[in-house]
This record gives sequence, structure tokens and C-alpha cells, in this order.
Amino acid sequence: MTQRTNLTAVLHGVGDLRLEERPVPSAGANEVLVAVQSVGVCGSDVHYWQRGRIGSFVVRVPLILGHEAAGVVVAVGPGVTHPREGDRVAIEPGIPCRMCVFCKSGRYNLCPDVRFLATPPVDGSFTRYVAHAADFCYCLPNDVSFDEGALVEPLSVGLHACRRGGVRPGSRVLIMGAGPIGLCALLAARAAGATTIVVADLRPERLPVAVRLGADAGLSAADPTLLDAIGQHAGGPVDVAIDCSGAESAVRAAIQATVSGGTVVLVGLGPDEMRLPIVDAATREVDIRGIFRYANTYPVALALIATGKVDVKPLVTHRFPLEDAETALLVAHEAREGAIKVMVEPR
Amino acid sequence: MTQRTNLTAVLHGVGDLRLEERPVPSAGANEVLVAVQSVGVCGSDVHYWQRGRIGSFVVRVPLILGHEAAGVVVAVGPGVTHPREGDRVAIEPGIPCRMCVFCKSGRYNLCPDVRFLATPPVDGSFTRYVAHAADFCYCLPNDVSFDEGALVEPLSVGLHACRRGGVRPGSRVLIMGAGPIGLCALLAARAAGATTIVVADLRPERLPVAVRLGADAGLSAADPTLLDAIGQHAGGPVDVAIDCSGAESAVRAAIQATVSGGTVVLVGLGPDEMRLPIVDAATREVDIRGIFRYANTYPVALALIATGKVDVKPLVTHRFPLEDAETALLVAHEAREGAIKVMVEPR
Amino acid sequence: MTQRTNLTAVLHGVGDLRLEERPVPSAGANEVLVAVQSVGVCGSDVHYWQRGRIGSFVVRVPLILGHEAAGVVVAVGPGVTHPREGDRVAIEPGIPCRMCVFCKSGRYNLCPDVRFLATPPVDGSFTRYVAHAADFCYCLPNDVSFDEGALVEPLSVGLHACRRGGVRPGSRVLIMGAGPIGLCALLAARAAGATTIVVADLRPERLPVAVRLGADAGLSAADPTLLDAIGQHAGGPVDVAIDCSGAESAVRAAIQATVSGGTVVLVGLGPDEMRLPIVDAATREVDIRGIFRYANTYPVALALIATGKVDVKPLVTHRFPLEDAETALLVAHEAREGAIKVMVEPR
Amino acid sequence: MTQRTNLTAVLHGVGDLRLEERPVPSAGANEVLVAVQSVGVCGSDVHYWQRGRIGSFVVRVPLILGHEAAGVVVAVGPGVTHPREGDRVAIEPGIPCRMCVFCKSGRYNLCPDVRFLATPPVDGSFTRYVAHAADFCYCLPNDVSFDEGALVEPLSVGLHACRRGGVRPGSRVLIMGAGPIGLCALLAARAAGATTIVVADLRPERLPVAVRLGADAGLSAADPTLLDAIGQHAGGPVDVAIDCSGAESAVRAAIQATVSGGTVVLVGLGPDEMRLPIVDAATREVDIRGIFRYANTYPVALALIATGKVDVKPLVTHRFPLEDAETALLVAHEAREGAIKVMVEPR
Repeated sequence: MTQRTNLTAVLHGVGDLRLEERPVPSAGANEVLVAVQSVGVCGSDVHYWQRGRIGSFVVRVPLILGHEAAGVVVAVGPGVTHPREGDRVAIEPGIPCRMCVFCKSGRYNLCPDVRFLATPPVDGSFTRYVAHAADFCYCLPNDVSFDEGALVEPLSVGLHACRRGGVRPGSRVLIMGAGPIGLCALLAARAAGATTIVVADLRPERLPVAVRLGADAGLSAADPTLLDAIGQHAGGPVDVAIDCSGAESAVRAAIQATVSGGTVVLVGLGPDEMRLPIVDAATREVDIRGIFRYANTYPVALALIATGKVDVKPLVTHRFPLEDAETALLVAHEAREGAIKVMVEPR
Repeated sequence: MTQRTNLTAVLHGVGDLRLEERPVPSAGANEVLVAVQSVGVCGSDVHYWQRGRIGSFVVRVPLILGHEAAGVVVAVGPGVTHPREGDRVAIEPGIPCRMCVFCKSGRYNLCPDVRFLATPPVDGSFTRYVAHAADFCYCLPNDVSFDEGALVEPLSVGLHACRRGGVRPGSRVLIMGAGPIGLCALLAARAAGATTIVVADLRPERLPVAVRLGADAGLSAADPTLLDAIGQHAGGPVDVAIDCSGAESAVRAAIQATVSGGTVVLVGLGPDEMRLPIVDAATREVDIRGIFRYANTYPVALALIATGKVDVKPLVTHRFPLEDAETALLVAHEAREGAIKVMVEPR
Repeated sequence: MTQRTNLTAVLHGVGDLRLEERPVPSAGANEVLVAVQSVGVCGSDVHYWQRGRIGSFVVRVPLILGHEAAGVVVAVGPGVTHPREGDRVAIEPGIPCRMCVFCKSGRYNLCPDVRFLATPPVDGSFTRYVAHAADFCYCLPNDVSFDEGALVEPLSVGLHACRRGGVRPGSRVLIMGAGPIGLCALLAARAAGATTIVVADLRPERLPVAVRLGADAGLSAADPTLLDAIGQHAGGPVDVAIDCSGAESAVRAAIQATVSGGTVVLVGLGPDEMRLPIVDAATREVDIRGIFRYANTYPVALALIATGKVDVKPLVTHRFPLEDAETALLVAHEAREGAIKVMVEPR
Repeated sequence: MTQRTNLTAVLHGVGDLRLEERPVPSAGANEVLVAVQSVGVCGSDVHYWQRGRIGSFVVRVPLILGHEAAGVVVAVGPGVTHPREGDRVAIEPGIPCRMCVFCKSGRYNLCPDVRFLATPPVDGSFTRYVAHAADFCYCLPNDVSFDEGALVEPLSVGLHACRRGGVRPGSRVLIMGAGPIGLCALLAARAAGATTIVVADLRPERLPVAVRLGADAGLSAADPTLLDAIGQHAGGPVDVAIDCSGAESAVRAAIQATVSGGTVVLVGLGPDEMRLPIVDAATREVDIRGIFRYANTYPVALALIATGKVDVKPLVTHRFPLEDAETALLVAHEAREGAIKVMVEPR
């Protein structure tokens, strides 16, 4: 490994992304060293780059962005039996403490001490080599590409949202927001057996993509008769509404569109506070459940992709080498040229 | 039954309650005729009497109030094998349609066609005789009194709230509001194995009652350091917070006091809309779940009372004959003389 | 309705099926009269015809067989608003009492007083007209045929098995037995997102059908290395094993093939008692859960069929007019000519 | 720590227990060193001592027995912030790998790589000092004694059994076997709100203890009319039956005594295989669920003990110094003098 260089895109301040050579990290105990091949640009990456913070998470520069990653294991640290050198892996970006009550009870996404790639102050994967906990690197099945491996991350959000919402065979589902996360929720809902999926978004250009990926209807969220349209296309109120927009108006619509006893899942993050029709939700036992990332989704996501139950490939619209990471962020930020998911390839 | 009279307190308009002789109803198919012995005054009875409506439920006069009832079966209709004449029973006040998807799936409280005593336009039980579906009349175990039988109704609300909140052995529970429903939630939480229960209310005089019924602490909801006090008495954030107040400030506190991955249960009804810290709830996966009445609680509640696991008797502070139903409503309304639960006895 | 005749196939004793004209029943309160168009022959029909009993259910002649039915509503009784005359419907064959603790809690399949078509002493649907509870007649979506409507019944068994087993996206599933019920479990598991499904049967000719319907592998249950083969094709132990064979050896294999913490679902009925490796199941927390029919599956099954998520049509291999009901039973009994599901059409 | 000696009772072969001085272990990373104060003798300890094996677990001598332990933290290893030196702690004996799918999903008791005290080849706690993972050492609340801390272990088995069985307020529970584990299941069921608990055992002398600890009835398991007696005392079939005996006849009775839709929990281990009325269980949807140890129970158990919801103290009948460990095993083995739980005190 002596001659490897580790080209890295480093954020030094708002809008200030620089390419640097960093040392190649070494794989510690129970870690593997991964040569990153593909990294998706997430809205959070764009946000940190443009604003320097997301809520209480404030960038402490320098910071490496990128957390939707897949690559090849090039070295293994002490104690690692799996994966092995040469294995192609998807990287689950959050390493929890493994010791707290959340970790012990299977909800490690709520671990207060989780170290999550590209979440300050933890560095991410816009870099050629990352060392990562071996048990959070999952082998890619044979026909699963690095891009698909990287997209397991946003797909995990969709899967977790569907689990929390209880999507199951026969569910009628509403998804507010047709960005990458909304589309992943759509794919996950289909895989779970949802029989009707209606997607709404303010941007009309996004709706055809949703329909192509399996939505039964793509509706304008700006339509003043949205609720009626949802009911008409879903054949009544929906069982589960998944908000991926973070807009108060969308969450309100989600509550109103959901059947008594159903569930609204909050995925998108908007303003800290919202004014909601809480008596309507409460007296109809419409549960309101948020999600924070995901847990125990990677093996499932990979199996779904490998068996063709979920196809994430259509989400990828652009690819850039690591050297053009800034362009990648820009394209994602402006959702230019129909950009959905922009990939960075630090090969 | 020829000579029975059926004295009844009838609401003829806001504040206009009149005693009348009504015909004794007859027990139809699958119904029993119950000689009502004890009826609790509920906040909704007071509300209809004082305001003439609760949300979209508008009183259509004349209306008979009262829905927390127990009595003696004095006649059985065709097809009834159980209960029998002479049986002492608690009356579950809502008769669902038995045919819709909610009824078939065990959530009959959400049945849109439920007929619920004292909910317009269905008459209630401030009367000597009511005919009621036999299978919603549950035999009182030997040592359970009519008052206790009537109180199965509010206790059911507490049980349903605890079920929806997932209260279980070891749960730390916060209850906002120490009125009759808050106290029933307290009793239900204790029965479910909660090891710490903190109760808060704006009215300090209510707190000692909560402590006497088993709360570990009774806190003033007006205390600006309420959250700190809750954390101190609960030994950290709570697993389940049950709001029985309907106040926005209480629901906000409930969210903030609840551990990541926990649940806030909305029982009290306040303003139609609330402004809530929804990002905090969502990103910590604190679920917000309302309740609407209850389902499948009566046998459980009766077993808990019969075995002494729950003691509802201390809730009863006043008793009035049916002839004094108006006074009963007034005492309940003004919570006079430490009134918690006021009973009407149409014997 | 005066001139309608009601041709009916009536069982008068073991092996003694006779065609008779019966009176057309009338639709009682909350009932509809259905002109039966399609009825599947179930193994239980064959069993009653051949043996006169199934366990404690003993035929009391005369008895009408057939319970997998769909047809057209030709009259509605008092109180019925839905479905309407002319509607095409699938008939859910079991009408529970609607009053017991099982009915109230959503598990109406366990109702001890359920009246189930073609289960002695209740008559079934090998007849031109049946009167049935309106709310257990579910409208067929536009493109769903009568055959498909009838097949909702066995599909419901598969759906209920998958629910009880917790099949969900990513599940690895083993199905023992590739008869109509095993195949329906296969279809249901696929719809629920199972990513690997291995099917085993003693009869090798059944395996290609399973594979055609979506199984990843069809294995001979007679293979002495069956467990190894399952593990190899499933990529390890399975999450859920569904036994549709009723054979002790199959249940033993199901337990051994299931991952710690997984579930074995018992669908097939064999000998009353079985000798099982119970310590292995218990100490690995492999749950053993039987099913009895199903509950709350019809709307889901119809939505899955209507949206193409499940295709039951390939199950139908033979069709006979009602006049040839005996031949239909015989073909089903002998599984002649590759028979899977044999339909009777009382048109 | 230089002068501390570490007196230890070491098993050198069947029936061959010897006192030895062992080196005091040191606390590794994330470990604490605990001065053991109280250790309960478990049936498995007796079994290893008497028979040299339990199923596939074969003693490799020398082995230290004992896994129900509590003590005082006397040193902390690197990385430990909690607990601290001087803290009194209960020791959860199983340390899982923290990396496998079971550990990540909250079922760490199923971890195939768990290291569990006194399970070959892992040494146990019949010794003065043990080093143990800090996060599996739980601080004892103020008024909780070392004996109670040690008894959290068997109580955890009872809690896990009740969780797996779904014991909740109003549950009617049958417990087969009134040894220490059966009694702990009884205590756990009471804490979870069970309203009726019937206990049966072959040894009549155990039944009064069960009744004293809260059983509503103590029945002879040898009674040929046991099922009738259970039904009579429980007021019908039970919701949950917990077998702590491991006897086939007891499991058969448990299945038959359980209501349709209920659960049988297998705790006791008997012969590898059992002949069971599997069709009765399956067609009534009576689930059969085993348990393996427990997970996520220690904080709950400690809270239940600290608040007096569970009182384990009456279980302790004998105490011996570590020097008399062999006598302790003998008394436990022969259940002499009404022995229930025998404690060893390595102080």
C-alpha cells in the first residue's frame, strides 16, 4: 500500500471544496480499508457545502463529505474474518457505539454516539480510501454494481420508512415528494407489496420519473384539489402516507389523506415546528412517526436489488470523477438536466 | 314490566335538563334490557350540557346524556343466551356496525357507524332502563360494585392509551393532566408494570390525588422548569408520555420529555390544530399516537378491578340520585369540593 | 326470481354425489343472493366426498360441498347497501358470530361459532344460487375474473400464512409442499417481498410449476440431503418456513432449516400428533405457529390480483360444468393430467 | 490490587470441585473488575457438576461455574466511563459479539458467538474477582441488595418468557413447574398485569411457595384431572402457558389449556424431541415459542425490584461462603430443606 495516494475532496468552508492528497488510512481492529468506487451525492452533502450546517450539526472544517458509498476491500485489519480483501462492498455509513440501550435493542440508528460518515465532525467518503468497521461493509452480490451498492443508502431510508409505516401487501400508499428519497420510498413500498402508490410533488417534471418507477399516479402538490385527486387515484384514503418533502402543507395533506388507523411517516425535514391538524390525527388514530436514518436494512436492500425486486439504477442520472466533485454537488444542488442521483467516482 | 316507569333526565337545549317519564324500552334481538344502577358523569356530558356540542358532534335535542353505566339485566331479547336476567353488568357504550373493515380487524372503535351512548343523536343512560346489545354488556364479577362497573368506561380509555403507548414492565411514564382520565391512565400504567409514573397538572390540588393513586411524583404543569423536574423524578426521559390535557404546551412538553424511540399518546382533546416541535419528534423517532375511545378493554378492565390490580373506587367523590342529575353535572363541571368522579344513580 | 331453478350437487354419503334441483334461497337481512359462476375444488371437498369426515368434522348428509366461490349478485336482502344487484363478487365463505372475543379483536377465523361453507353442517356452493352475508361478498375489480375471484380463497390461506410467519421484504422462505396451497403461499410470499423462495415436494412433477410461479428452486422432499440443498439454494437458513404438506418429516425439516429467531408456519394438516425436535426449536427461538383459515385477507387479495402483483390464473388447469361436479372431484382427487386447481362452473 | 487473592471454586471433573487461588484478572478495554459478592446456584451449575454436560455443551475442565452474580466494581479498564469504581452492580453474564445480525437487531441472546459465564469453555463467577464488559454491568439502585442483583439473572428468564408470551394486563397465565425459574416467571407475569396465574408442579411441597408469591392456585401436575382443574381456577382456558418443566406431558397440557390464539412458551428443557398434539395447536393458532436466555431485561428487572413491583428475596433460602460452594451445589441439587435458591457469597 506504500504507493497509493488518497485523493480527497475536502470542504474548507461554505462553498469551498478543495482537492487534496490525504494519507491512506489504515484498517484498525475489526476494520477494513475500502477503495471507494462510487459515492452518491445526498441532499445533506449539498446542504453542508452550501450552508455549512444542518440544524444543530455545524460543519467543523476541514470536513470530507459523502456517505453513500461502495467500493472494494483492499486491506483488512486485525480480527476481521469477513469481508475479505478483494470483496466488493456497500458501506453502511453509521457506526454506533454497540453498548447503549439503543444498540442493544436493535435501534442502533438512535444511538447518541453513532459516528456517521460526513456528519460533523466525522469525515465521509469523497475520497479514494476509507477505513470502516468490517461488519458495516456488506458484500455486493455478483450482479450488483458499485452504483447500486452506493444507492443502498438512500434505499435504506425508503425501507425504514416503509417498515415504520407498516407498508405491507395491499397497502395503499401516498408519497409526498418525488426527489431521490421519495423515489426510494416508492421502490421500497412496491417491494413490500403496496398495491396503490400515489406520488405528489410541487415540481411537475419529477412526476413522470415517479410513474416510470412504478407510481400509479403522479400528482401536482400545488393542486388545490390535491386531497380529492389522491382519494380518486388511491380509491379512497391511503393506509400509509410518507412525507419526504418536509413541508408543513404536505404533512397536513398526508394526515388528511390517511385512513383512520393508518400511519403518516415523516422523512423529510423542514421547519423545526409545524402547525398540524392534531385532533383529526388523534381521534382517527392516525399515527405520526418520524424516522432517523435506518437500521438493519443493508442485507435486505442488497437482496432486493440482487433479485431484481428493486431497481435503483434508473435513479442515477450523472456520474463524475472525484476530481469533479464540486460540479457533482452543483448539478445535484440545481437538479440540473433532470438530475436525480449524481454519483462521484473516486476511482 | 307493565308497571315500570322510566324516569329520565333529558337535555332539551344548552343548560336545559329536564326530568321526564319515558317509556321503558324493550330488548330487541340480541339485546338485553338493563336497569341502570350507576352512571358516571363524563366531561363530555358536561360539555354537551354547557355548550351543546363537541367539535362536529352537535346536540340534536332532546338528548339523553350519560355513557359510563352499569346495572342489572331485567329482560333479555330474542337470541340472547348471555348475560341472563338478574346478571349485574357493565355497559360498553359503543355498538359498532360489526361489518366494516375496522370492525372485522379488531379496531371497532374506529367504525364510522358506531352508535355510542350520549353521542348525538344516540341517547344515553341517565335513565332507569336502557336496551343494549347483549354482547356489549359484561357481567360484573362478584365483588365488583355498580360504581366500579360504570368506571370501567374511563378506565378503558386509560387502558387503551397504555396499549397504544406500549406501556410495559419497567416503563417510565409521564401523564399530563390529573383529571379522571389522567388518573385512569395512571391506574392502567401501574397495572401494566410501569415502574415510574410522573403526573403533571396545572391545578395543584389534583396532584395529591395522583400521588395517592400511585404516582411517584405530582408536578405543577405551570412550573417553568417542568421538563427538568420530570427528568429528575423519572430518572431521565420517559418511555411513554400520555397527554390527557389537550393543551398544546402539554403536548410539547410530552414530546420533549420522551426518550428517543418512545411514544407520546394523545388522549385529551384541545384545539383542532397545534404547533409542535415536529422535527425533534421525527428525528428521535418519538411516535405521536392518538386514541379514540377504546376497543377490547372491558373484560380486561373487569379482571383488573376484580383482582384488585386496579382500584377505581377512590375516584368516586360524589353520588346523586337521577332526580339530581343537574346538580351532578354542576358539581362535575365546577369540580367542586374536590370532585373527581360524580356518579348518578337512577335506581 | 320465480322461474329460476337451482341445480345443486349434493353429497348423500361417501362417494355418493347427486345432482338435484333445490329451491333458490332468498336473501335474508344483510344478505345478498349470488348466482355462483365459479367454484374451486378444494382438498377438503375431495376429502369429505371420499372419506366423509375431516378430523372432528363429520359429514351429516345431505351436504353441499364447495367453498371457493365467486358469482354475480342477483338480489339483495333488507338492509344491504353494498354490494348491489349486478355486482360481481368473491365470496368469503366463513361468517363469524360477530359477537365473541375473537370477532371483536380481529381474529374472527377463530370464532367458535363461525358458519363456513361446505363445513358440516353448513352447505356450500356447488349450486347455482347461494345467499350469503353481504359484507362477506367483495366486489371484483374490473379485470378480475370469476375464477380469480374464487381463487381468492386459497390465496387467502397463503396470505394469512405469510402474515403469521412475518414474511417481509428480504425474507428467505421455504415452502414444504407444492399443491395449490403451497403455490398460493409462494405467490403470497413473493408479493410480500420475499427475495428467496425454495419449494420442496415429494412429487417431482409439481416442482416445475412452483418454479414457473416464481420459486427460486424446486427441490425433491425425498432427497436425503434436502437440508443441505435448502441451505445451498437459500444461501443459508431461511427466515420463514411454511409447511403445506402436513407431514412430520416436512415439519422437522422446516424447523431445522429455519434461522434462529425465525418462524415455522403450519398450514398443512397431517396426523394429530407429531414427534418434533422441540429443544432445537425452543433454544433457537424458532416459533411454531399454525393457521386456521384466514381473516381480513379478501380486500388485500383482490387488490393484489387486480394490480397484477399476484397472478393466480396459472393455477387453474381444469374447468367443469356443475353437472360434472363428480368428475371435477375425481380429477382433483387423482391430480390427473397435471391438475392443480379444478374449477366447477354452476352457470 | 497487589495483595488481593482470588479464591475460586474450580470444576475439575464430574463431582470434582476444588478451591484454588487464581490470579486476579485485570480489566481490559471497556471492562470492569468486579469483586463478586453474591452468586446464585443455577440448575445448570448443578448439572455441569453432576453430569459434566448439558446437551451439546460439554465441560472442558478446568471450568469455573456460576453465572448469577452481583458485586462491587473495584477497578475499571480503559475506555470505561460507567460504571465507576465502588459502584454496586448486577452482572449480565452473556457478552455477545456485537456485530452479527442478531446483535444488530436486538436479539443478542441468539448471537452464535456469545460468551456466557459458566458455559463451557467460558469461566463463571464462583470466584472473588471477575473482569466483565462494563456495559453488561448494571448499577444496583440504592435499596437493592447483592442477592437481589444476582437474582436479576433468573428473573430475566421470567421476563423474557412473559415478553415472548405476550403477557399483559388481564392475561390468564398457566405456569408448569414451580422451581426457581417457574417462580420467576410467576413474578414477571404478575408484574406485567396478569390477573390470573395458575401454577402446577409434580412436587406438592413447591406449590405453597408459588401461592405465597402470588399464584392464584397451585395444582398438582400429577392430577389426572389437571386440565379441568386449570380451567376451573383460571375461569376458562389461559391466554399464555409457560412451561418451565421441560416435561412432554407438561407441554401437552400447556397446549391443551391455552385458548385459541394464545401462546405456549417453552422455557424448561427436557428431551430433545417431544410428541405433541400439533394439529390442535396449529388449527387453534396456539403459538409455540421457545426462549433462549433473554435480552434487554436487566434495566427492567432492576427497576421492578427497586420499586417493589417484584420481590425476589423470598426465593433465597440458603447462603454459603465460597469455601462451601460444594455444599451449596449439593443443597441445590437435592433441593434439601425446602431449598429454592441457594446463594454463594465469595466475599
